[in-house]
Amino acid sequence: MSVRFEIYDDKIKVTDLISVQAVDRSYFGKEVNGKKIHLELSPEEALYLIDVRKAECEKDGKPQSFNQVAGQFQGPKFLARYYCFRDWRDRGLIVRPINEAKGNYNRSPMEKYPAAETKTPHVKAKGLFFYDDLMSVIDENEEGNALYENHWFGQFGTYKAKKHGQFLKLDAYETVFLARHGKYKLNVLTKKIEEQAVSRRPDFMELYDVYEDWRLRGFVPKTGFKFGTHFRLYFPGAKPTQETGQWMHSRHVVHVFPRSAKMLISEWARAIRVAHGVKKTFILAIPGAKNAHHYDEHNGKSETKNNKAIILSSPRLASGSGQLDFLLYHRKGADIENPRHDSPTFVMLALSEEEEIGGEELASAIQQSKQMGLDLMLAICDRETAVTYYRVKRIDLPKSKYEYYEIEWVQP
Amino acid sequence: MSVRFEIYDDKIKVTDLISVQAVDRSYFGKEVNGKKIHLELSPEEALYLIDVRKAECEKDGKPQSFNQVAGQFQGPKFLARYYCFRDWRDRGLIVRPINEAKGNYNRSPMEKYPAAETKTPHVKAKGLFFYDDLMSVIDENEEGNALYENHWFGQFGTYKAKKHGQFLKLDAYETVFLARHGKYKLNVLTKKIEEQAVSRRPDFMELYDVYEDWRLRGFVPKTGFKFGTHFRLYFPGAKPTQETGQWMHSRHVVHVFPRSAKMLISEWARAIRVAHGVKKTFILAIPGAKNAHHYDEHNGKSETKNNKAIILSSPRLASGSGQLDFLLYHRKGADIENPRHDSPTFVMLALSEEEEIGGEELASAIQQSKQMGLDLMLAICDRETAVTYYRVKRIDLPKSKYEYYEIEWVQP
Repeated sequence: MSVRFEIYDDKIKVTDLISVQAVDRSYFGKEVNGKKIHLELSPEEALYLIDVRKAECEKDGKPQSFNQVAGQFQGPKFLARYYCFRDWRDRGLIVRPINEAKGNYNRSPMEKYPAAETKTPHVKAKGLFFYDDLMSVIDENEEGNALYENHWFGQFGTYKAKKHGQFLKLDAYETVFLARHGKYKLNVLTKKIEEQAVSRRPDFMELYDVYEDWRLRGFVPKTGFKFGTHFRLYFPGAKPTQETGQWMHSRHVVHVFPRSAKMLISEWARAIRVAHGVKKTFILAIPGAKNAHHYDEHNGKSETKNNKAIILSSPRLASGSGQLDFLLYHRKGADIENPRHDSPTFVMLALSEEEEIGGEELASAIQQSKQMGLDLMLAICDRETAVTYYRVKRIDLPKSKYEYYEIEWVQP
Repeated sequence: MSVRFEIYDDKIKVTDLISVQAVDRSYFGKEVNGKKIHLELSPEEALYLIDVRKAECEKDGKPQSFNQVAGQFQGPKFLARYYCFRDWRDRGLIVRPINEAKGNYNRSPMEKYPAAETKTPHVKAKGLFFYDDLMSVIDENEEGNALYENHWFGQFGTYKAKKHGQFLKLDAYETVFLARHGKYKLNVLTKKIEEQAVSRRPDFMELYDVYEDWRLRGFVPKTGFKFGTHFRLYFPGAKPTQETGQWMHSRHVVHVFPRSAKMLISEWARAIRVAHGVKKTFILAIPGAKNAHHYDEHNGKSETKNNKAIILSSPRLASGSGQLDFLLYHRKGADIENPRHDSPTFVMLALSEEEEIGGEELASAIQQSKQMGLDLMLAICDRETAVTYYRVKRIDLPKSKYEYYEIEWVQP
């Protein structure tokens, strides 16, 4: 016999004993007035039971179809939420409403990155800046070669063949960095270079800020063009050629998502896809001031208080894709986590392929997840209702000014 | 002894006999007044000889460095042009100035695509449109299943598991198409759906036009989300499940680049990278009216006249990345093509990673290449001066309204 429920007072209620037991056993529904005599279903739960378990729903004694139920409860990103909910359940895993979250679960450790003391060399040669190319050239080879060999600034000679051709070519990030930190003199003022770069790509200064931040911690960011991203990243100590004569491969790429930027989810996901295809770790950089709360953590203060009040009062939570959607229970060994005995592992933000997301919104969703002590799981429902997951892990880069996250395409 | 040349009257001239012979033997330089007593070099040729062959350049009796020469001749995308030129030469291949082009070389055949007669089914069930999700649902399963099984509209049940769950989910392109061509009735007017979709993504109607164009020729475009593109494409006759029970794999993806759109080269290349990574053919769609010239060809008229006059008088050629840069000679067997005996194979448009390109500009460059009877080769110089090549092949899709091109990442 299939599960039955009905709609009244704009609520979806399960009242007959057999249905209540079946629904409760599967971790659907919530108690009414603290008792399990009746259960109330969320719209996602009701649709799931209709869709997958052929449950029967009635209103005023009349059977209700999927569209009739969905039509009554339709709200922002309704189908995206539903199909993301369904997909998690279809994996045999439990998903529960976000408002059941209790305090900080402390299940979101940070990935620690190394950082090195660095000193920027002083550039003794003068460079020529090419306006339209956003690059500068140092044609004094001794100086150019030293900057390349010892610090991996620019490209000497030819990519992967430094002895073919000559001269040091520096891109706009390297040029501005050396002008600011290495007394690099050019035919034009640094300010003019920045203005020209910003006129070409309005997000130039945000990209530069990220470049500078990693460079100052000893990392070597180079163009990520071949990997469809803003930078590829080498860890401290990297050199353009190793002693073994082997070319050094980067293992990380960095994509900069300014707070003010807006991007279609499909375009955002594309960048992650390329990184995945070339087996590199995708790092999302969100430049610009972190909020005070976040700074606290960098000063070593922990926050273990119940942050639920903060989450619920956040103005960004009122609507839109900044709102977190579900608590996700995952696996534990051969078993699965369940809400009666376990804590959730992730918090889900459900998105759809053709919606836009802003840098600020995403930063806010990550911040909220952090306050819950859970890793954020971005679930993206495509136009065929197939769901793709991206797990967000926080990065701890000592002394850094900005927020960085590893984004990993996962199959939960 | 190294090659020597000098700058006077803003020209770069090779005058001593040994240098003239060395330069000419390598297919550099052009005759002055129809004689090879003296040769004139383009800035790219001069810089190449300085950079790679350690040539000596003088002006007013003083030796000139790379930056001194470059500084004098600097123009739009100067370094991008130079490094693309150099890269082609570094491959042992010949590159010559674009103004040496002679008429139509007839070396740009079209890729023929099949097209099938199609009839759009009439939808007998009513759908519910979800505004925020840009999707509609048909919850009458007999009708929904028929649309899915017989015509591959939408997704019935679950992606790759149509028997799990129920109901037909249609994306906005499918919804509008069936409303326009299949009498599909919904809870809202088609016009409202289109308005909502355009408010979400301003290029919606351009994407729809491309969807409709392929659908009407018997192809099945579905979401390309997993491949970082707008659509993946199945050829006429494709069904969601094959008789063998095997899932059918698409081999093509379609990216829509509206004429009015502008995009950073790096973002544009990213989309092609993903397609390459999953081994699919990348099709670039340029919707909107083709010019009259192009229509001619579709009516079967060939153009073999010398179109050089048209090319040179095009207003778009005045500046910017719409201007073609070089004639490219390629390989023939174990040998290479040379300008004395052979025709060029490609025409190069040199671009840099951080420049913007518009749909109109790209369409114009392709059009100019077509008039020369050569395939366009996009050469992209990244921030490390490494060059990546994308070959553009024209597609012949019978009865289609728009222009389509296969873009292939190649290593020449």
